[in-house]
Amino acid sequence: MSDFPTEHVLLTPGPTPIHPRAMQALTRPMLGHMDPEVFALNSDIQADLRVMYGTEPETFTALLAGTGSLGMEAGFANLVEPGDEVLVCANGSFGRRMAEMAARYGAKVRLVTAPLGEAIRPRDVAAQLTDDVRMVAVVHGETSTGVLNPVPEIAELVRSSGALFTVDAVTTAGMEPFHMRDWGVDYAYTGAQKCLSAPPGLAPIAVSERAFARFGARRTPTPLWYGDLGGLHDYWVGQTYHHTVPVNLHFALQAALRAALEEGLENRQRRVRQMGRVITRTLEPLGFTPYVHRPEERLPTVLALRLPEGFDDAGIRGQLRQRDISVTGGLGPTAGVIWRLGLMGESARPEPYRRLMTALGDLLGDRDLADRYEHHLQEETRELVSV
Amino acid sequence: MSDFPTEHVLLTPGPTPIHPRAMQALTRPMLGHMDPEVFALNSDIQADLRVMYGTEPETFTALLAGTGSLGMEAGFANLVEPGDEVLVCANGSFGRRMAEMAARYGAKVRLVTAPLGEAIRPRDVAAQLTDDVRMVAVVHGETSTGVLNPVPEIAELVRSSGALFTVDAVTTAGMEPFHMRDWGVDYAYTGAQKCLSAPPGLAPIAVSERAFARFGARRTPTPLWYGDLGGLHDYWVGQTYHHTVPVNLHFALQAALRAALEEGLENRQRRVRQMGRVITRTLEPLGFTPYVHRPEERLPTVLALRLPEGFDDAGIRGQLRQRDISVTGGLGPTAGVIWRLGLMGESARPEPYRRLMTALGDLLGDRDLADRYEHHLQEETRELVSV
Repeated sequence: MSDFPTEHVLLTPGPTPIHPRAMQALTRPMLGHMDPEVFALNSDIQADLRVMYGTEPETFTALLAGTGSLGMEAGFANLVEPGDEVLVCANGSFGRRMAEMAARYGAKVRLVTAPLGEAIRPRDVAAQLTDDVRMVAVVHGETSTGVLNPVPEIAELVRSSGALFTVDAVTTAGMEPFHMRDWGVDYAYTGAQKCLSAPPGLAPIAVSERAFARFGARRTPTPLWYGDLGGLHDYWVGQTYHHTVPVNLHFALQAALRAALEEGLENRQRRVRQMGRVITRTLEPLGFTPYVHRPEERLPTVLALRLPEGFDDAGIRGQLRQRDISVTGGLGPTAGVIWRLGLMGESARPEPYRRLMTALGDLLGDRDLADRYEHHLQEETRELVSV
Repeated sequence: MSDFPTEHVLLTPGPTPIHPRAMQALTRPMLGHMDPEVFALNSDIQADLRVMYGTEPETFTALLAGTGSLGMEAGFANLVEPGDEVLVCANGSFGRRMAEMAARYGAKVRLVTAPLGEAIRPRDVAAQLTDDVRMVAVVHGETSTGVLNPVPEIAELVRSSGALFTVDAVTTAGMEPFHMRDWGVDYAYTGAQKCLSAPPGLAPIAVSERAFARFGARRTPTPLWYGDLGGLHDYWVGQTYHHTVPVNLHFALQAALRAALEEGLENRQRRVRQMGRVITRTLEPLGFTPYVHRPEERLPTVLALRLPEGFDDAGIRGQLRQRDISVTGGLGPTAGVIWRLGLMGESARPEPYRRLMTALGDLLGDRDLADRYEHHLQEETRELVSV
């Protein structure tokens, strides 16, 4: 009956392939957004999100009915008032997006920057973190460059200030260590289609009590009615109507989130690192090299590899796409310079990358590529067994 | 393998049961939001939305990655600047929501009201429509009360003013006459889960050239980055990245929208009216009466019926829910007073209401109920044949 392709190998930095349990849940018969079963499911999701984010037992968690960018926006819309000093760490596209959103909600933005492909330096944050800063915002994993920012070190600086701490966990929560309580994060968000491999269209958020107090003390309501924390709280805690939440996406996210917790967050962290090593070792002989110079600054979930000299980026990716394999290049200044190989959720598995390596070996005339991949994969498996 | 129920009868004023073709498309393997196939699909959606809304051939149409309320919000966020005079027709919850959103974006709001259960009077609009009004906003079908507002008549007044005309088409577009071009509507929106029976999480919008010119002349950017018309245009026309759109919801919406156009918009209008008459006639002997007094003010897609004297609203709906049938009561002041029976998309079919009538006959001890339903259904079928 269907004329859809049955398979597509999605190796992008989001969306990721949908988890089979999430796909199944997606087709569950619809229920209304005010249905008692849906409220029960929402409570399960809230509890599991607390585990994923490492929050206090009472921290407010919820899903925004939009993608990760709406999660980003809701943080500034609810927690920033016109005239607030906001310090934004911006070393890539998503950090700059944060700065733009903060400014649109009236913030006086101070930027802490770093060269492309390098992490934010905590001492640069310290230098600008004066008493009047009301919020510090940082992207944990910069999807645009594959850089992991030192959130724990920045957190330590922010904890001793009066500022709220907003962290973009889009490429990290659910697959990288994330400790909201221990670090003192006040607002965190991700996208359903990233490390959880749920369908896109939802942004899981976590909001500290301190952030809620700041929200409660606003002089004027936030312009953003759709993501208003009060309205969200009414629905997720008070079970009163705010807007029509996308119930079948809730079904799917709940299934994917539960699958992630059953696998175990530490097992997932290990899995992404193993796959990253296997892919890097396999591609190194072709001239691919890590784009991020310092190993400790490499984001494990988005493997940024500098392309070999003279590599036909668009041409090869176009030929891969014809074989139903999607690989993503750079963004903005890194376009044509790097590939960003997604290792979030279900993409960090041997099979999808096997498909890539086979196709790539064929396209590049490297007959050893697929064998190298299997060899490095076996090495990692042995390491895993010996752990 | 699945422990989900295989069926649920969803008769609410949204979400509606998902169209089978949309459900199938939902499970199509994921593609990235920048994939050429997705851009081709997006173009098909844009063309079909122009037909649904009855726009100019070049009118900008798109999907917002959120529910209908985000569609409402984006209108005010993009087209209103602080200090603008905005005339909002508010004769129910959703009209009042419009007024609240407009105010949050800095509008000076003038309200045109009507008693609950009555439509807005065009003469009341005319009385307040002075030269300084920058926008007139009205809800076409007030979901909260089942009232159809006289959009064509209000449109005529607005056309001769300099104001933009924003219409909430949430319960109408795709199932009720909607003529954006002929009426002179500048901004229209709906929710995927209403008349189209697509999964919730998308808001189809249409924006006139006049509205785009107003947007282009803004003194400051809209706070709403996520729904910024410029950013949406970049993605939907320019094929450049803005945010990660929920691709599998696009798959599903495209399938549902295409199914609607294949059925024919006029056939759909007839179907909803037939079902409305059948249900009303079947329930009348029990004491259910139309909540909206004037027949021409009754919204066909949300049948608002006043409950019989002494009717146990919550009790009966709870018992129906135990039989996997969802029926919605009133909202706010109409709670306990009315039922709002959804007749949008796939709920306006004989089978789901057959399930309701059978269950209701059983619960209320009315043995004739199911037979009456079949009788009135046959009558309508005959009428249809003779048309």
